[in-house]
Amino acid sequence: MKLSARNQLKGKVVDVVKGATTAHVKIELPGGAIVTASITNDAVADLSLAKGDQVVAVIKASDVMVGK
Amino acid sequence: MKLSARNQLKGKVVDVVKGATTAHVKIELPGGAIVTASITNDAVADLSLAKGDQVVAVIKASDVMVGK
Amino acid sequence: MKLSARNQLKGKVVDVVKGATTAHVKIELPGGAIVTASITNDAVADLSLAKGDQVVAVIKASDVMVGK
Amino acid sequence: MKLSARNQLKGKVVDVVKGATTAHVKIELPGGAIVTASITNDAVADLSLAKGDQVVAVIKASDVMVGK
Amino acid sequence: MKLSARNQLKGKVVDVVKGATTAHVKIELPGGAIVTASITNDAVADLSLAKGDQVVAVIKASDVMVGK
Amino acid sequence: MKLSARNQLKGKVVDVVKGATTAHVKIELPGGAIVTASITNDAVADLSLAKGDQVVAVIKASDVMVGK
Repeated sequence: MKLSARNQLKGKVVDVVKGATTAHVKIELPGGAIVTASITNDAVADLSLAKGDQVVAVIKASDVMVGK
Repeated sequence: MKLSARNQLKGKVVDVVKGATTAHVKIELPGGAIVTASITNDAVADLSLAKGDQVVAVIKASDVMVGK
Repeated sequence: MKLSARNQLKGKVVDVVKGATTAHVKIELPGGAIVTASITNDAVADLSLAKGDQVVAVIKASDVMVGK
Repeated sequence: MKLSARNQLKGKVVDVVKGATTAHVKIELPGGAIVTASITNDAVADLSLAKGDQVVAVIKASDVMVGK
Repeated sequence: MKLSARNQLKGKVVDVVKGATTAHVKIELPGGAIVTASITNDAVADLSLAKGDQVVAVIKASDVMVGK
Repeated sequence: MKLSARNQLKGKVVDVVKGATTAHVKIELPGGAIVTASITNDAVADLSLAKGDQVVAVIKASDVMVGK
């Protein structure tokens, strides 16, 4: 499946922290920057997300702000 | 001002396209990935955004999905 | 690629309207409801979206509100 | 009150799971698809959300991606 | 209909600018602050939005960042 | 840093509730309205957010709906 989302950044999972219902997943990009995703615990289980996984951070263009 | 947003990715503006009310700004990250931001034309004018600008792509953690 | 997004609703494209930079795509779900997606013109071109296409409307759980 | 949100999908609550601050509400659409909403526990209490409730899943068009 | 959205700010429409597909609506809050909403032209037509209208700006808590 | 976000509402923190991974911060605007932000616990710690703080609620225009 190809996605309309303009931003699909490849990276490696470096941390997964599950909360009561919401988990935080940290993804390291090739350039060294870290992207944090706040997703449901269900999604973490569904994708069997764990440290070291090669993943893609998917972000809609309308969710990106610019600071200068 | 410090922001709560977990994702603040530094990069360089490589393209700015203005539409009728909405503009698309492309930002190149150090690792070579391109992030596209869909923001208002007003914002582009306010920040005087132009090719070559050093900027920050700001993204809330709850707006990041993960694909695997 | 499997996505963390909890909402992946299958449907059929019934309308595509392109604007200056932003397009509106209408997707009919099996139950008859229509979902409208506001995406970039670039995405419409990339996915060659057209009437009749079988597609998936992808929505993050944190972007769904409830009315009662 | 009429809302600008393009997507207002009627359905029935089939599950409510409260976390520490964030709850997940599952809504079944007429066609059988399930929509998951991640909302605050406060909102669940405010609306007295419970299984069997007839509700509306409200989603802004700019929060819908398309996969093909 | 009661909404789960934690933020429902009453105000008055002070400007409506329609683009090709996307419109910008400016809403003045009682304290004088201006809130800008980027919504579809369809929504502007549906709600017959015009200067002077008493409206509510609806914002999900997960879409609010904090700067300090 | 100047932000592209059209909505930057000044206010005072009147409540901070931390959950397992996600916190809710309530901000009182000058006109008396309360804005609730759902952000990560990490962000609360990073900004040392506490009652009485003068802060800014930052909201992208594409995340604002209108009700009438």
